[in-house]
Parts: sequence; structure tokens; C-alpha cells
Amino acid sequence: MVCLTRTALYVGRFQPFHLGHLEAISHILSKVDSLVLGVGSAQYSHTLENPFTAGERVTMIRLALNEGSVDASRYYIIPIEDVNIHSLWVSQVRSLTPRFEVVFSNEPLTRTLFREAGYVVEAIPFFSRTEYSATEVRRRMVEGEKWEPLVPSTVAEYIEEIDGIARIKALTKSDKLSVQAE
Amino acid sequence: MVCLTRTALYVGRFQPFHLGHLEAISHILSKVDSLVLGVGSAQYSHTLENPFTAGERVTMIRLALNEGSVDASRYYIIPIEDVNIHSLWVSQVRSLTPRFEVVFSNEPLTRTLFREAGYVVEAIPFFSRTEYSATEVRRRMVEGEKWEPLVPSTVAEYIEEIDGIARIKALTKSDKLSVQAE
Amino acid sequence: MVCLTRTALYVGRFQPFHLGHLEAISHILSKVDSLVLGVGSAQYSHTLENPFTAGERVTMIRLALNEGSVDASRYYIIPIEDVNIHSLWVSQVRSLTPRFEVVFSNEPLTRTLFREAGYVVEAIPFFSRTEYSATEVRRRMVEGEKWEPLVPSTVAEYIEEIDGIARIKALTKSDKLSVQAE
Amino acid sequence: MVCLTRTALYVGRFQPFHLGHLEAISHILSKVDSLVLGVGSAQYSHTLENPFTAGERVTMIRLALNEGSVDASRYYIIPIEDVNIHSLWVSQVRSLTPRFEVVFSNEPLTRTLFREAGYVVEAIPFFSRTEYSATEVRRRMVEGEKWEPLVPSTVAEYIEEIDGIARIKALTKSDKLSVQAE
Amino acid sequence: MVCLTRTALYVGRFQPFHLGHLEAISHILSKVDSLVLGVGSAQYSHTLENPFTAGERVTMIRLALNEGSVDASRYYIIPIEDVNIHSLWVSQVRSLTPRFEVVFSNEPLTRTLFREAGYVVEAIPFFSRTEYSATEVRRRMVEGEKWEPLVPSTVAEYIEEIDGIARIKALTKSDKLSVQAE
Amino acid sequence: MVCLTRTALYVGRFQPFHLGHLEAISHILSKVDSLVLGVGSAQYSHTLENPFTAGERVTMIRLALNEGSVDASRYYIIPIEDVNIHSLWVSQVRSLTPRFEVVFSNEPLTRTLFREAGYVVEAIPFFSRTEYSATEVRRRMVEGEKWEPLVPSTVAEYIEEIDGIARIKALTKSDKLSVQAE
Repeated sequence: MVCLTRTALYVGRFQPFHLGHLEAISHILSKVDSLVLGVGSAQYSHTLENPFTAGERVTMIRLALNEGSVDASRYYIIPIEDVNIHSLWVSQVRSLTPRFEVVFSNEPLTRTLFREAGYVVEAIPFFSRTEYSATEVRRRMVEGEKWEPLVPSTVAEYIEEIDGIARIKALTKSDKLSVQAE
Repeated sequence: MVCLTRTALYVGRFQPFHLGHLEAISHILSKVDSLVLGVGSAQYSHTLENPFTAGERVTMIRLALNEGSVDASRYYIIPIEDVNIHSLWVSQVRSLTPRFEVVFSNEPLTRTLFREAGYVVEAIPFFSRTEYSATEVRRRMVEGEKWEPLVPSTVAEYIEEIDGIARIKALTKSDKLSVQAE
Repeated sequence: MVCLTRTALYVGRFQPFHLGHLEAISHILSKVDSLVLGVGSAQYSHTLENPFTAGERVTMIRLALNEGSVDASRYYIIPIEDVNIHSLWVSQVRSLTPRFEVVFSNEPLTRTLFREAGYVVEAIPFFSRTEYSATEVRRRMVEGEKWEPLVPSTVAEYIEEIDGIARIKALTKSDKLSVQAE
Repeated sequence: MVCLTRTALYVGRFQPFHLGHLEAISHILSKVDSLVLGVGSAQYSHTLENPFTAGERVTMIRLALNEGSVDASRYYIIPIEDVNIHSLWVSQVRSLTPRFEVVFSNEPLTRTLFREAGYVVEAIPFFSRTEYSATEVRRRMVEGEKWEPLVPSTVAEYIEEIDGIARIKALTKSDKLSVQAE
Repeated sequence: MVCLTRTALYVGRFQPFHLGHLEAISHILSKVDSLVLGVGSAQYSHTLENPFTAGERVTMIRLALNEGSVDASRYYIIPIEDVNIHSLWVSQVRSLTPRFEVVFSNEPLTRTLFREAGYVVEAIPFFSRTEYSATEVRRRMVEGEKWEPLVPSTVAEYIEEIDGIARIKALTKSDKLSVQAE
Repeated sequence: MVCLTRTALYVGRFQPFHLGHLEAISHILSKVDSLVLGVGSAQYSHTLENPFTAGERVTMIRLALNEGSVDASRYYIIPIEDVNIHSLWVSQVRSLTPRFEVVFSNEPLTRTLFREAGYVVEAIPFFSRTEYSATEVRRRMVEGEKWEPLVPSTVAEYIEEIDGIARIKALTKSDKLSVQAE
């Protein structure tokens, strides 16, 4: 029955999706019936902070969860554009997603905004921020170090397929990441 | 292998999801490996043309496809906001979705825009526009006629659960669907 | 003490402010301690539906309430831009205004949105829509009929001072109220 | 010397550029030193009212003025997006264009807005609205009548080259000119 | 008579309202009949630079001016959203506010923009930037120092009532003040 | 014949236009028939990075190219607003400009985006970035050094005529280039 299920929200930028994200998702799915995965900053791509499009990140998540044998009917993957107006953000998330009752997040602002809106907010206990961080993955990509062990293997394959490392390296040569030359 | 699959795009507003949509999806999934379902006009809700939020429409699609035993790993459901600038729309869709090679649509503008962008566009043969149309479903909802036979039964249950008929009827009493009183 | 006061919200477009608005405000101020007057569609002006700027409408409200001897410390006048995304509207109003506990409105969509957000919504009993309506005032302005008896006298003076009737008449000559000539 | 020249503004949508526009431009260039041609509603295309992109319209204007032997150093062609907020429109035009002192327009709202901003606004005397109108050109395109005599011959050639008639005819088949199928 | 009054504009972000703002307002009200208080960056909140919503800032201003016995009929409090396009800002302010003839500001860009638009711009002589600065108030709030002496006492009470210090402290724990977790 | 010409795109911010830009344009015009000059970040002005409006920059380009005896019928000057969403930028440029076949750019992100969209992208060989850079011109303007030798002489005259140096110097006194005072 629809109304008996318990649904959680988990929002990330997934730039790129890594093993820490997978661990967090496994943890949350052990607590709830279904999960809404919000792909944040969805409109951005081709910057050092946000190299991949929302569509590419959706693809990574699906590949990783298939690889991890997570049943696709237990989760939704929803791109969510930044509105940059914090007072509207919870309403925007709510209008784009199936109903959820609990929010999993370690990010203080996300926690504050959802708590002020009356949601139950829970921490993600063993999401190891330093070992598996997207910032670290991107740093290794830029500097030519081994980044593949930090992400699921299908994600690594996919990033190679779309020539993602070349894109990131081109971005680092752009002085100011503006699209206009001086 | 990732690169051998063939993916189609099918965009609709799904206000609400009805049996014609289900037929169209079955048809498309008989032709391709996976399907990106774009939920158009995603930012709109609470109008007579767009009564349901994108999140509610995502929920309807999932319920209907579960009811129809469609494997959830074969499709993506992606909300897509209208940009109202037709020359940007194909790029916007492309940035929010996994890669697709073919577009299924009977809508002339959608067909024109994707064809101008170099996509293969195919018609949906037995999508019966007059029998199963969202306009007709909404008309029946407003006028108190039997709308339930036109939608999958889990969708009908869900619309009742969220009190959707009351919302639509309230909208008809609004003179001009502006949020401001005179 | 701040927390004991009871504050109401009343949103209108006030195009222009008329005696029906004054009646509604008097009614509401007889029920609550203070009142937030939201000036809706604040970004629009120079159209037949919205001839006056938000600033001109703020001025009319202040003039009318001074004329009616309403204590200026009992109300706030807040311009509120339309977001055109109904699911964000309540959050937008809430972020721009002092806290309010009750919403006075006869407009079905406004009532629906605030009720869905958990607010108490009350009707405005003797706000006579047909006698004093902004549509009727604008119609008379366009057709050269007597509109002054429908608005407070300081508002009539102000509209003359800013040459408002000439502006509205010029707007009617514009075919399609677009700013571009063919 | 820069400061002695007299520059005029003339804004149109040019959907498409026709012989009436050419007449108007010749008239204005007989009165001033140089001319800023604003291409209004620049962001729109692929609709029945705005079938051509701004870039296509810029091309038409250049072709027509070359055909009419108008010296290209006497005019600027500047796309201007609609802001839909009339109170900001004059400032927007001003920020995108070289300085101008006089505005040529027969459109009442354009005249009102520039006059309120302190500009000299002049009428265009022999711009024959009924004979040469873009609405009439588009109507003939849709209905398969002879539209070519109403536009400069290089413009007619260009429209054929970009397959413009096929685009307009496809647009008429779209029920509601929304990019989303029901 | 309406037209004999002299009105000034004073724009600030009031994050939060402090005693320096009160001094500035008293100074201006000694020079003019009425005052438009523009609450800048109105759409922002829940950031370290802009912790409070526009509505909370409107409330602070009203409380402080009541506490200072300033007659509420002498001023307007108008939230003004940033457009981030400097060439449009003066027009935007003008459309949202009652007519003003003089602008009080010490901020060089504000002074430049209003002077280029033809306004008289006056400095605020004894607005002591270092003693009473909103940056300093927020710094003390974050670091747990005494901030209350820098603001009117009703403002201090109000900030406590809405639990403002907890909100600011939560914001400092957010790495990058983005709403999305990595 | 229209279809035989070869057109290039060259996008810059031209803040301000300098002799390096002129060199680049001469180089490109020696390779192609006509040139689309995109004036990037068109909506911005009155900041240290973008002191001049798009209209002022259009004027500079025209003056410089007239001074350099470049035939005005060989180029277009098109203001292009930043969309800040990289995945939409190529489509936006394409919709605002006449058709072009080749893009000249040394900027890595511009090169990446146009190459991903299937365009031929060529480098600009003797565009000396350090000698003639807009950043260097602005630095000299701010610090009162000789900047005039870096720009065409008509551009230097024009900047003086519009009092550009005073504007830039005022901008440097603004703490944070926000339009709001604290």
C-alpha cells in the first residue's frame, strides 16, 4: 500500500558519484522503504566544481546502483536545479519529488532548512567525508593520480567513455572558467 | 556493455498519467533498450492545465509502471522545466538526461526542434489522442464525470489519496488562475 | 510583547486601490493586531491589467489609509513579485513579510495554497466584489466614465497627479501590449 | 566627430523583415546620421508569432540593407531580449545599444515608455501598416499564398535557403505551441 | 499637499539592523519629510552575509523605529531584490518605491548609479561605519561575543525570539554555504 | 551568393576593446569572408571586471574598426548575455547570431564547448595576451597609469567622452561591488 511506505530524501551533487555515496545510500535503504536521490546543482556542468551534466550524473547513479544490485524500483533519481534563494529551496525540492518523510544529510545548511520546514533530519553515520570525497576524486583527476579506486567500476568506465578526464583537464586551463575570452 | 544499448526519449506533461501514456511507453520499450521519460513543464502545478506537481507526476508514472510490471531499471523519470525559449530547449533536455539516440513524439514542434538538432524522430503509432487524452481526463475531473477508467488504477488511487479532485475543482473557481485577488 | 500580537496577511494587486479594499482592511484590522498588505504582481506595470507600478500602488495605499485615519504602525505594505510557480509562492510571500498567523482571502487559489501550507484562511465577508472592483474602475477609466467615486479621494488626486488616465488610454491603443512594434 | 552625430533608435521584431521596414529605415536615415536597429523579442523563435531566431532576423536585415545599398557603417543591428517588465525595458535597451537621442515608433506603449524616460519620440509617417505587415506576411506563408512580393528579394531567397516556410507550416500543426506533448 | 513633501531614499541590507542605521535614519528624517527604506538583497537569507530574510529585516526596522518613537507614517519599508545587472537597478528601485527626490548613500556604486540617472545624492555624515557595522555585529554573533549593545534592544529581543544566533552558527559550519552536500 | 561565404565567430568581453582585439580581428578577416563579433557578458556593467555596458562596447568596436578602415558590411556586432549554464551557451550564441562555420578562440572552455557541439575551432596565433590584455588596460586605468597606447585612439577618445575613468575609479572605492551599502 502506497501510504505505508516510508521514503527518505538524500541530496548530493555527485560530481562524480563515488563509493562514499554508495555506502550512504546502502545505509539509508536499510532504514526506509524507498529513497529520493536529488541531484543538486542540476543546471551546472563544465566547471571545475561541477564538471558533469545532470544527465551524466543520473547515468552514473543508475550504473553504480545496478552494479551494487540495488532494486531500481526502490529509488528515484531527480535532478534539482539550484534556485540560489535559500528560503525557496525546500519548497522547490518538495515540488519536484515524490513525498518523503525524512531527510538524510550531514550538511549544516540543508539540515537547518529542512528542520525549519518541520522535517525529521537524520545524520549519515559512516559516510566517510575525507576518504571518499568528490573533491578528492576531482583533484586526482586533474593531477593525473589514480582516482578509479574511489568510484564504482562502472562509473569509472562511463567517465572514460564520455572522455571526462579530458574535459576536466581542459577546464583547469581556463583562467577564470568564464566562457568568454578576454 | 553501456555503449550497445539503445535509448529513447519520450517527453510528456502527464497531467495526469493515463492509459494512452502507458500504451505509448509499452510500444517504445518494445523498440529500444531503455527509455528516458521527461516530465515536461516540471515547474508548474496548481493550474487547470497543470494541476499536479512534477513530484506527484513522477509518483504516478512509477505507480503505473510498477502496476504494468515494467522493470524499473529500464527507464528514467526526469522532470524538465520549461525554458520558454525554444532555441534552448533541446540543449536543456540533453543536459538533464542520460544519452538518447531516438526521440518518440507526435507533437510537431518537438519533432521540428529535435530534427533540426540532428536527432532521429519517430512517431508513436497507436497512441490514441482522442480516447485517452489528459485534457479529457481533466475535463471529467472538473465536471464530476467518471475519469477513473482512463487512468491506471494505482494512479486513480493516488489522485484520491492526495485529494487531487478537490484541488482541481478549487482551481476552476479561481477567475483567472492568478494567485492574487483583485 | 512581540509574540502576543496577532498578524494577518492580505494580498491584492490594488490596480488601483479602491473603496472595497479599504472596507476589507478595516474589517481585518477589527480582528487582528496588525496587518501585512502584500502588493501582488509587483514587477508589472504599464499593461491594461496592471497599469500602475508597485511604488505607485504603495503610495495609493498609504494615502488611502492616512485619509481613513488608520494608524501606520499597525500595518506593513510589502511589494511581492509574481514567481509564476505556484508551488513556491507561499514560501516567497513568507520570506518577504513579517510573521503572520492568518490569511484573509476570497480568492480560491490563494486559499488553496495557504491552506495546503497549513495556514488558517478566513473569508472577507463584506468585500463587495461587483460594486467595488478594480476591473470596473479600470473599465471606467478607459471609457471616460466617472471612476472617482469608487476610490478614496486622495487616491483619485494622486492618479491625476501622475497622469494615470492618459497612461491607461495610451495602453488601450497598443494592439497587443507588447513593447515591440511589428 | 563622435559627439556631433545624431543617432536614432528603431525597434521591431522583424518576423520577417519586409518592405515596410525598409521604407521606415530609409525615412529615418534621411533624418539622422546613424540608426540603432533593435531586434525585439530576441530570445523567441519557433512560434507562429516569432518563427525566426534573432540571428536569422539579423541576417535578413543585413541582406535587405545591402540590397538597398545602405552603407553598413551607418547602422547597428542589436538583438534585444524581452524582459516582460515594462518598467525596466528602456534601461535594458539603453544598456545594450550605442547612445541615441531620438526614438522612431508608432507603437503606443513604446512611445509612452520612452517619453516617460525623457526621450524625443517621433512617428514614422509613411510606414504603411496594412499593406506591409509582418502578420500579413506570416499569414500568407501559412496559407500558401504569394508572400515574396512583400519582402526584399534577398530576404525571400534567404527564407527559402533556411527552409523557413516548412518550419512555419510545422508550427501551425502544433496544437498549442508548447514543446511538450500531452 | 502630496506634491510639496520631499522624500528621500536610503537603501541598506540591514543584516541586522543596528544603531548606526538608526542614527542615519534620524539624520535623514531631520532633512526630509518622508523616507523610503529599501531593504536590499531582499531575496537572500540563510547565508553568512545575509542570515535574515527580508521579512525578518522589515520586522527589525519597524521594531527599532517604534522603539525610537519615529512616526510610522513618515517612512516606507520596501524589500528590493538584487537584479545583479547594475544598469537595471535604478529602474527597478524606482518601480518598487514611492517617488523620491534625493538619495542618501555613502556607497560609491550606489552613488554612481543614481547620479548617472540624474538624482541628487547626499552623503550620510555621522554614520560611523567602523563602530556600528553589520559585519561587526555578525562577527560577534558567530564568535559568541557581546553583540547586543550594537543594536536597538527590541531588535536584540527579536533576534533571540527567532533563534537567530543558532541559525548563524549553523551557517558557519557549512563548508561552502551551498545547500547541497558533496 | 549567400551560401558560398564563410563566416567566423569570435567572442570577447571587450572591457575595453584594445589593440590586441584589433589584431585578432584583422587576422580572422584575412581567413574568412565575414565575422560575427559576440560581445560577451552583455548584461553586465559598472563592475571592476565589466565597467562598460554592452552598448558602450559595441560603440568602441565600431569606432575602432572604422578607424582601422574595416568594411562594416563584413562584420556583425552582437551582444550576448551570459546564461551561466554552460550546457546552454552554444545554443544561445547560435540563436542570436547569423550562421557561422568556424570559431576562433584561445579560451579553453569556449573551445571545449564549441568542439563538443561539432564546430571547427581555430586558435588565434598572434593575439598577444600579455602585451595587449583588457585586464592590464583596466589596471592602468585604476592606478592612473598610461592606458591610452594600448587601445585604438578613437576608443581612448570615446572612453574620455563618457567619463569612463571616473566610473572605474568610483568602482574601486566600493568595498564589495554590491549596490547595497551595509
